Amino acid sequence: MPKSRFKVSKDSLLPERALLDQIRSQAARSGAGAVRLGIGDDCALLGLRPGEEVAVTTDLSIAGRHFRLDWHTPEVIGHRALARGLSDLAAMGARPVAAFLSLGLPEELTRHTGRHARRILAGRTWLDRFYDGLLALADLYKTPLAGGDLAQSPVALADIVLIGAVTHGKALLRTGARAGDRLYVTGCLGGAAAGLKFMAEAGPYKSGMPRSFPDKIKLALEPHLYPRPRIAQGLFLRRRGLATAAIDLSDGLSTDLAHLCAESSVAAEVDAAALPLHPSATLEQALNGGEDYELLFAAPPKAKLPRAIAGVAVTCIGRFVPARRGRPQITLLTIEGSRPLPPHGWEHFS
Amino acid sequence: MPKSRFKVSKDSLLPERALLDQIRSQAARSGAGAVRLGIGDDCALLGLRPGEEVAVTTDLSIAGRHFRLDWHTPEVIGHRALARGLSDLAAMGARPVAAFLSLGLPEELTRHTGRHARRILAGRTWLDRFYDGLLALADLYKTPLAGGDLAQSPVALADIVLIGAVTHGKALLRTGARAGDRLYVTGCLGGAAAGLKFMAEAGPYKSGMPRSFPDKIKLALEPHLYPRPRIAQGLFLRRRGLATAAIDLSDGLSTDLAHLCAESSVAAEVDAAALPLHPSATLEQALNGGEDYELLFAAPPKAKLPRAIAGVAVTCIGRFVPARRGRPQITLLTIEGSRPLPPHGWEHFS
Repeated sequence: MPKSRFKVSKDSLLPERALLDQIRSQAARSGAGAVRLGIGDDCALLGLRPGEEVAVTTDLSIAGRHFRLDWHTPEVIGHRALARGLSDLAAMGARPVAAFLSLGLPEELTRHTGRHARRILAGRTWLDRFYDGLLALADLYKTPLAGGDLAQSPVALADIVLIGAVTHGKALLRTGARAGDRLYVTGCLGGAAAGLKFMAEAGPYKSGMPRSFPDKIKLALEPHLYPRPRIAQGLFLRRRGLATAAIDLSDGLSTDLAHLCAESSVAAEVDAAALPLHPSATLEQALNGGEDYELLFAAPPKAKLPRAIAGVAVTCIGRFVPARRGRPQITLLTIEGSRPLPPHGWEHFS
Repeated sequence: MPKSRFKVSKDSLLPERALLDQIRSQAARSGAGAVRLGIGDDCALLGLRPGEEVAVTTDLSIAGRHFRLDWHTPEVIGHRALARGLSDLAAMGARPVAAFLSLGLPEELTRHTGRHARRILAGRTWLDRFYDGLLALADLYKTPLAGGDLAQSPVALADIVLIGAVTHGKALLRTGARAGDRLYVTGCLGGAAAGLKFMAEAGPYKSGMPRSFPDKIKLALEPHLYPRPRIAQGLFLRRRGLATAAIDLSDGLSTDLAHLCAESSVAAEVDAAALPLHPSATLEQALNGGEDYELLFAAPPKAKLPRAIAGVAVTCIGRFVPARRGRPQITLLTIEGSRPLPPHGWEHFS
């Protein structure tokens, strides 16, 4: 198989040189301080600072499961693929070093004609526009795209790999929460699920978010289409030593908090009234909706948490308690009383 | 979407705990010295030695294109997926640190029944056997599987990510070959293409390589089914400072040598009579067949190359000459005279 980064020869979907030049020039915008050797050799080479560990995460997105070609624009699919990986780095308190992308695409998505041609604007292919979305977010987070792979595939898919760096022994793990710690969340909850529901109902709008959309609809769609990974917030928490454990909210509060509890061997109580709901979201969406990509973290009661970090609100939504036989892993406290909150993972498009 | 390494909740193909335990125990066999945090958090954490750079490579394998479910056993597909990535590290002279795997699979490949049930042995699923093949090679190369992703997909696919380490500034690049350098190759050539041709013709044998196969057929199939990445050889060349440039042979000699020449701005002459042909291979297969995963490298004329490195032969097959207008990038010298050798990338199953 072809082996240069963004591959060559007969497996390639575009002429090698043209594609490499395009990626190189777009990636260069993201700055490449740590990338000592990028696209074009057998491996990329990355430099870390002394005393740092490497953080690695991979996230696979597949058409029909994690995105829909008939709902999402190519830019949105590119943005969301990278956002998933960046959010994993944020949850460790890691700084992004570089991204790698393996793409499998039906050939028609790399051409200017075919079934998806109606989504082609200004002579740009689906693939061009996918890179636009991904590289715009990469720019914003100063994360160069340093390599990847490209192959023809009957189904569109993107596997994103994020390489980050974190001071040795200082990463925010899932295992550090202790009974007595407070439970915090960044930003607001349920917005992505509310936006997805809106899209499912409004099908014909597709996901382009035209300028003509009312502001209310834009507000509702934004968290689903253009999530903002909480890199700055994760770095702040780690550097200040404020959090004892962290996870990012990709599966939904009930599921991700269950992971945090299980890994830390504690239980948790959530105050329903304290939850920072997105203006479009229901309580159900805030509890069980996925893909908010906010940080959920534990901090000791004495820790002085700011009300906001880098412009994003920080809210105390509960506390950790000892895990005991017969006690639910997560208890939801409401004005009507308390009830167990079982993990409800999120069905995407399946 | 689910986000623990080897993912959870409703996207998962197996119950989380059972799958995690299986991977963790199998991966533990590979040793995990540099893996400070493996499967189960938002990211894996890897430690490097002082003065080392991170080498990263990703390789996407898709059913019908890079492997065939009706030709290759799950073990072979797992072995080959990891071998592709390890070979990229070998070509940089990097030592493997950890592997990450994103798998997309039709649900039936994770069950004990269905269309592929005939390939299920002793109660093991296709997925179990895929891991057997991958982890056996990971064992051999002391490369722990430290994370990944798993999702349902209409087409089977595996994206393998290899993280390696190499002394800062010492990696074997594609850019260092100089006119006057000799051209070397490890092992023998054309074996993988010969094995693939045999399989294409012998279809009914499938790729299980039963013990009843005659030795000659086993010898012919081995390079295609179970390639051995040249990690030890790459490390030897880098540590001794013997090579000025290197690439691994994944697309075939004519194509990969063209990459090396282009990146180093030189031309090359290849002595046909010097090529170490695999006993089953033709000259055509040695020149243009892909997936031999041997190392192709440049060394100064004064460098003293051993005849073999870690049991694998090293053969001088030509030399680098200045690139000149009108001169072919690669010239093949035979007893009948010389002719240009254009790159012939390799068509897999497409």
